[in-house]
Formats: sequence, structure tokens, C-alpha cells
Amino acid sequence: MYQVLVAGATGKMGRKAVELIEQKSNFALAAVLAPSIADSDLTLPQTTQCFSDLSQINHSYDIWLDFTTPQAVYQNTEFALQHQMRPIIGTSGLTEQQVASLQQLAQQQQIGGLIAPNFGLSAVLLMKFAKMAAQYLPDAEIIELHHADKKDAPSGTALATAQQIQAGRTQPVKKTWSQNSARGLNVDGVPIHAVRLPGYIAHEEVLFGGTGEALTIRQDSFDRGSFMTGVNVALDKISDLTQLVFGLENLL
Amino acid sequence: MYQVLVAGATGKMGRKAVELIEQKSNFALAAVLAPSIADSDLTLPQTTQCFSDLSQINHSYDIWLDFTTPQAVYQNTEFALQHQMRPIIGTSGLTEQQVASLQQLAQQQQIGGLIAPNFGLSAVLLMKFAKMAAQYLPDAEIIELHHADKKDAPSGTALATAQQIQAGRTQPVKKTWSQNSARGLNVDGVPIHAVRLPGYIAHEEVLFGGTGEALTIRQDSFDRGSFMTGVNVALDKISDLTQLVFGLENLL
Amino acid sequence: MYQVLVAGATGKMGRKAVELIEQKSNFALAAVLAPSIADSDLTLPQTTQCFSDLSQINHSYDIWLDFTTPQAVYQNTEFALQHQMRPIIGTSGLTEQQVASLQQLAQQQQIGGLIAPNFGLSAVLLMKFAKMAAQYLPDAEIIELHHADKKDAPSGTALATAQQIQAGRTQPVKKTWSQNSARGLNVDGVPIHAVRLPGYIAHEEVLFGGTGEALTIRQDSFDRGSFMTGVNVALDKISDLTQLVFGLENLL
Amino acid sequence: MYQVLVAGATGKMGRKAVELIEQKSNFALAAVLAPSIADSDLTLPQTTQCFSDLSQINHSYDIWLDFTTPQAVYQNTEFALQHQMRPIIGTSGLTEQQVASLQQLAQQQQIGGLIAPNFGLSAVLLMKFAKMAAQYLPDAEIIELHHADKKDAPSGTALATAQQIQAGRTQPVKKTWSQNSARGLNVDGVPIHAVRLPGYIAHEEVLFGGTGEALTIRQDSFDRGSFMTGVNVALDKISDLTQLVFGLENLL
Repeated sequence: MYQVLVAGATGKMGRKAVELIEQKSNFALAAVLAPSIADSDLTLPQTTQCFSDLSQINHSYDIWLDFTTPQAVYQNTEFALQHQMRPIIGTSGLTEQQVASLQQLAQQQQIGGLIAPNFGLSAVLLMKFAKMAAQYLPDAEIIELHHADKKDAPSGTALATAQQIQAGRTQPVKKTWSQNSARGLNVDGVPIHAVRLPGYIAHEEVLFGGTGEALTIRQDSFDRGSFMTGVNVALDKISDLTQLVFGLENLL
Repeated sequence: MYQVLVAGATGKMGRKAVELIEQKSNFALAAVLAPSIADSDLTLPQTTQCFSDLSQINHSYDIWLDFTTPQAVYQNTEFALQHQMRPIIGTSGLTEQQVASLQQLAQQQQIGGLIAPNFGLSAVLLMKFAKMAAQYLPDAEIIELHHADKKDAPSGTALATAQQIQAGRTQPVKKTWSQNSARGLNVDGVPIHAVRLPGYIAHEEVLFGGTGEALTIRQDSFDRGSFMTGVNVALDKISDLTQLVFGLENLL
Repeated sequence: MYQVLVAGATGKMGRKAVELIEQKSNFALAAVLAPSIADSDLTLPQTTQCFSDLSQINHSYDIWLDFTTPQAVYQNTEFALQHQMRPIIGTSGLTEQQVASLQQLAQQQQIGGLIAPNFGLSAVLLMKFAKMAAQYLPDAEIIELHHADKKDAPSGTALATAQQIQAGRTQPVKKTWSQNSARGLNVDGVPIHAVRLPGYIAHEEVLFGGTGEALTIRQDSFDRGSFMTGVNVALDKISDLTQLVFGLENLL
Repeated sequence: MYQVLVAGATGKMGRKAVELIEQKSNFALAAVLAPSIADSDLTLPQTTQCFSDLSQINHSYDIWLDFTTPQAVYQNTEFALQHQMRPIIGTSGLTEQQVASLQQLAQQQQIGGLIAPNFGLSAVLLMKFAKMAAQYLPDAEIIELHHADKKDAPSGTALATAQQIQAGRTQPVKKTWSQNSARGLNVDGVPIHAVRLPGYIAHEEVLFGGTGEALTIRQDSFDRGSFMTGVNVALDKISDLTQLVFGLENLL
């Protein structure tokens, strides 16, 4: 039975994480951490320890599951590693340098874990498959579609997908680029097109073309609840990890 | 039985038109016009008159079906109207001014006809439906996808579709436009995205978004043979026309 | 300023209708009808009359907007017509015979109105376009996709779409039907395929094929809030109606 | 420089294979085999040996590339293996038992090779990705779309894809199966839907659904020329193989 501490248990994602752990056999909700845990309406098993501050934690749990804030996440992960708790970090905001530093610490402590900016399984599989396909079909374009209120374009996932495609290529792509915004934004030799329309939620398509054929990979995120499928996979695989891995795709 | 003259009978489209007429009940291939008709390998019924030049034509056929060249099309259409032949013009290259001038001539001659830059039925229906949908769902984007060798972007059909959407709108579209080529080319308040990949042929999607819902219309042109479905519709409807109509969509 | 009575104002759809009327210029929320209105948490303008029973209504409002129950809808619509209120009926459950009887009453009372089993604008437009396309492209198939919990298959909208396609055809479809469930359920010469998967919400695609080309119309319902776009259209057009119309598509 | 023999060089696929070898650096078209090679219009390098029968071949080439007939393929592959030529077999028609027997022979001869019923790279990648995705998203359905003249349904590729999905699953799929052909043909717990429409060529979609999300993989075969991309991959990897591998997916 793995003992899990959920950090950020009173937040939107944290609550879903609490639910997941309670339903999952072989995993116990041993502790929660949240500044406002005392005033929260969260219902917890009597056996669950409640902490409102890092300094109160005097026990080493098996797994540290973190859905907190960009301000808290670095210190939390450091604390977990120093106390031999395997971190699963779903909180965004860590810089590249911070990730590198935490990976070094994990190595010193000889403990594995996961930092995953995206737990959406369909998005992570899309990126993984896109990288693999690019080895054989280097010509690719990305269309990402989001609700009209999304201010930035292209999306972070689209940018990450373009990087994966470029990383997967074993032959150069022919660059015949029109000076025309109809042809999208060129990222790593992959044109990205961003659609913003009311009604849409969060969707991404990768289109590959080869002689006489096409391959398309699409993912649709209809609901944030989808992230827990990815957390579930992470919990099942965390014990096998001997390093602090970055990206859920490296566990699939 | 309608007597049809096919102008440009030895060309790629003209040959398909000849085949179509021969298969179609109520229509007879009465005559063909082509400069090189004498040397052609085209097999024709014995009853079909062959002309290599306008000046040889001394009879008024019911329908003038034209798949010639931008150089010949204006004079041909003028000739047809002056001799009371209903023109169906599939040849491109007429200017707006030439179309207006021919429409005036048709009115004087009290004869109807059709000038259609695009006989692809799926593309024409897409444009028609896009205009209708825009009345209720003004927020729209276009994605057009073509083979990697297509030099221009966006496609002419995509531009025409954007104009139809704008014409169909009864309420203004909110303009929140990012200065970013990922958001496509803004044509009449419709972002157009152009994909160019090997393998693809000619495809277009129009995406509409409204509160909690989306509507998508897509057309695929796999083969130029598709144009004859549109010519067939034009032949069936030409007798009802009392004006020289521009655009197959106005017959549907 | 049109005076509107919302029947079923405390229900899920009724509440959205109340919101819509309050936001809409030229329309006033004059009255609401709901058995439990006295105990409801619904916040209404002071000028809005509240009725818990039909018998209390002693005034003729311009429009009767109904989102009640299959048990109440027939009597409600009859009452509205008898008192010169134009009905817009979003409640399901009326039989064909009841609809016919109400249409006769509307004619006697010389008043127009609308009965709409589906206010989803994208679904209604899809059906309208499918009927139109079938005139030129008679070969069609339907794929409808819903969440895994939907018990029935195919969906009511898919069946209605197949009927529209059949009604739109002007030429017979070739019947080459395999005795194989992979080829779907044959409804009016249109194969219907029903996909049931977790994650999905409510989606429908109509695929048309012709020589060398294809046309696809797709609609996605992500959220029930989408229905209010259709109600809004109905409110704008209701004054022009001189009959009791069945189906939103006949207003578009 | 690898010496290649192309068997079936005068056929449709064989001719494309000849073209491919001639363009490819490090590979030389050393020989061709075809019963009617003497009368063929095929233009070949002067250095290429021409054989009309197996019995004429008195040299061991590096690679045996086979696009012949179901009648010839078994004997050809056996011959290649016995004479230390690495077979790449694109000809269909080998039974499971014949494949097993040839694999045993390859082991005895200590030589690797490939038998690939499908060289379409997009189809092979689709199957590979579908198997991988099924590990995390076991709920899946297949839609395959082909031209109206295709007699059988579902397609062989769709059946093979369903088997791959079943092989990839690590958790059982819930079986809630409606007795209704709208729900498709149940193959290994994967509903398959087959669309047959004019215009379409050969396309396949795999739809995965999970909590709040969906993943879709689609491939389009527009043209048989696409197969040569897969043959090209096979040629590049054949030297690394130590067994007679079945299925291009096992090289990707």
C-alpha cells in the first residue's frame, strides 16, 4: 500500500487527485497539505494527516503528488526529494534551470519522480506519435483549435509538438515558405495554425503528408477531468523510475 | 432533344464534356469546335458537325458548352449569345467587366446562360452553405489544404468562401485579432489558414463556432472528373434561366 | 417591446430562457409560470408576474415560451393559442396527432408559432444542408458519435437527418447493401453508424460522395447552452409566422 | 552498393519499385525477373540482368524485392532464402502456415527479411499507434471509408487494426453492446464501421475515448504510389534484420 501526500488538496485539481487516490487500490491518502486546510469543506478519511505548512511534516510518505502554485512548487519538490518522497509534479511554473537543479538533487538522493506540465493523456500521446511519425513523414503542419477567449496563440502544446516533430525528423524538410500569414507561423519548420472560435474547448491536429498519402493525429480535450487519467498512469509507474523524469510521454 | 455544341472538345475538360453529352438522354452532341479537330484522335458520332473556327458555324444550336482558353472565351460567349445559343461557360479568364458586358448582351438578346468559374459541386455547395450558416453563426474560420506544389496561398476558392461568409452575416463579428501569423490571414473578418503538404489534393474546411456548439463543412476534390457532376446540373437547369447567371451556386 | 411569458422558468432550460429574455432588447420578461415558483431561488425583475398555475393567468402576453414537461406541454400550448399568445415550444413529448390538432387550432385562431424538438442551431443547419445536398449528391452516410452512457442507437437526430436526406433526393440511390453490420443500419437508403465512447458529448457527421469528390457536414454539441442560440433566432422570427410551424429548420 | 533483384518488374508495383531502386543511392538494379520481360516496354540499365524464369538465376543478389502473384510468391521467397538473398515481399497471398514455414527456413539459412502485406506507411503507422494508445485508452472504434465499388466490408486493414488494439489493451473493455447494426461489427471488442461512397479512395480512422478527452488517428491513401515510401524504409532497414519479420510495423 503506497502512502500518498497530496499537496494543494483544496484546489480544483487537488480535489480531483484526492478523489482518485481514495478510489485507487494499493494507494492510501495518507496526508494532505494546503494552507487553508483547516477552513476547507474537503471531507477526508479520519486516518489522513492534515498539514497547512511544510514545517509540520515530520514523516516520509511514499509519494508526493503536487497540484499547488508556481510560487510553492520548487520548494515543495525540493522538500519531497530531501525526505525521500517520490514527487509527481502537476504544478506548472518551474524554469528549465529549476528542473535541472531538481534532477541533480534527485540523483544525489537516489530517488525517481515525475515533473509533467501536461497530464492530458490524449495530448501526450499525440506528441509522442507525432515525434515517431516525423521520422518517416517529415512534412507536417499543426492546427490547434481553442475557445475564442484564449488570448495567446499558438498554444504551448502546439509549440511543444513542433519541437517534438523537429526532434523526430531524420531527414531535412524542404523549406518553401510563402511570406504570407495564411501559411501560419513557422516553428522548427512546422507551420502552426491557430483557430479561435466560440464553442470550441481545446483541440489539436497534426497533419503529415507523404507521396500519395496522409496521416492525421487529433486530440480533443472536452473537460479538465481528463487530466486524472494521466495522473493515474503516473501513480502506477512512479515506483519503477530511477530518475526525476520530465514529461509524461517518457513514461508511456 | 437539346442540340449541344462543345467548344474546346479536344482539351482535357472538353473530352469529358463530350463523354457526358453522349451518355445523357435528351441531349445530343450536335457539333464540336476546336482548332485542331481535324488532326485529333477524338472519336465522334457521324452526325456531329466539326468546326475548327467560329466563322464556319452557320447554325444556331440550343446550348454552347465552352471549355476553351482565356484568349477565346470572351469572343466565343459573345458569338453564342448573338446567335441565340445558351452559353454554359466553364473556361476561366473573363474579367468582371467582360462578365458585365456579356450579361448586358444576354439581356438584349433575351437569352439565359451560365458562367461558372468552378463546376466542383462539393465546393459550390460548401460556399452556398457557408453563406447561409454565417447568418446565424457569424464567427468562422477557413482551412484549405492543397498539395505541396501549389504556389499561391490562400486558394481562390478560400477567398471566394470568405466573401460569401461576409455577405451572409447579419451581425458584425467581434474583431479580436492577434498580430501573429499563427492566426492566419484575415479576409473579410474570416481567418484563412492554408496547409501545403505532399499527398494532399484539394480540400477545404469552413469552421463555425457558437455558444457551446460548432458546425463544420468540408469538401474534398480527389479528381478533376468531379467537375462533370456540376456540368450535368447546369445542362439540366439551363433552359429555365432567363439571365446570364454568374456562379453555379445560383442554380442550386 | 414584446411581452414574453416563460413557462417552466425554474427548470434548467427555463432559467437559461429567463436570462436570454432579460438580455435581449425589444423583449421583456413579463411573466413566468412554474408550479414551484413561490419557493424558487430564481431572481426576477419586480415587474415580472409570477404564476404557479394556468388558471391564474388573466392577461394575453405576446409570446409564450415553453420549457415545461411532456405532461404539461399540450395543455399549455392550447391555452396560449386560445388566448392569442404566440407559442414557442421547446418541450418535447407532443405526439404527431397532438401537433396536427394544435396546428388546426392555430389556424382557427389565426396566430403563428413554433414547435421545435431541437433548438441546437448547428444540428438544425446540418439537417437543412443535408437535405439540400442530397438533391445533387444522393449517396450519403451518417456517423453519429455520443458518450458511452447513451443507451439508444441511432440517435433521434440521426434518424431525422436520414429522413431529410431521403426527402431531398431527386434521383434514386443505388442499393448495394451488404448483409453485414459493419455497413451500419439502413434508414431510408442512408447507412447510419453510431459511435459510443467515453469523453464524447454529442456529434454528428453526414458524408456525401460523388464522382471524384466528397462533401462532409459535421456538428458538435459541446454544451446544452447552445440551445439558446436557436431560441434567440425563434424569438426574432416569431412575429413573421402566420402558421404553427414544426421544426426550427423551417425558420432558417 | 546493394545489388537488388526485382521480381515482377513488369507489373504496376514492380515498375514503381524499379524506378525507386534506380533513384536510390547505395542500391543498384542488378536484375529483374518477369515471365514476359522479353516483350516488355520496360527500359532498363544495360547492366541489369533479365530473367524470365527462376531456373535462369545463377547468382546470389543481396536483396530480393517481390511484387509478383499469389501463385508465385511462396516459391520465389523459398528460392531467395535458399540462395542467401534477403527477401522483401510485397506480394499478398501467403497463408499463415506458409509464412511460418518460410520463417523457419530463414532461421536455418541464418538470413533476415521482410514479408509486408501493406507497405502503406500511413496505414502501418496508424496500426502501430493504435496498439500503443490502446494500452492507456482501451475504448476504441474504427471507421474505414472506401470507394463504393469495394465489395467486402470491413477492410482487411480495419480487421488487422482491431487485432492490434486488442493486443495493446492492458485492461478489459466494458462490453455494453447494443443488438443493432448501427453499432457496427464487433471485432475483438472494437466496433468497426464501414463507409462505402463514390469519390472516396481508401481511408481509416481509429477513435479512442477517455474521461473528458478523445484521441483520433486517421490515414488517407490517395494513390498507390504511396506504397513506395514504405518500400524505401524496408530497403534502408533490411540489412539490420536477423529474422524473417512479418509486417512493416515491426521495422518502424
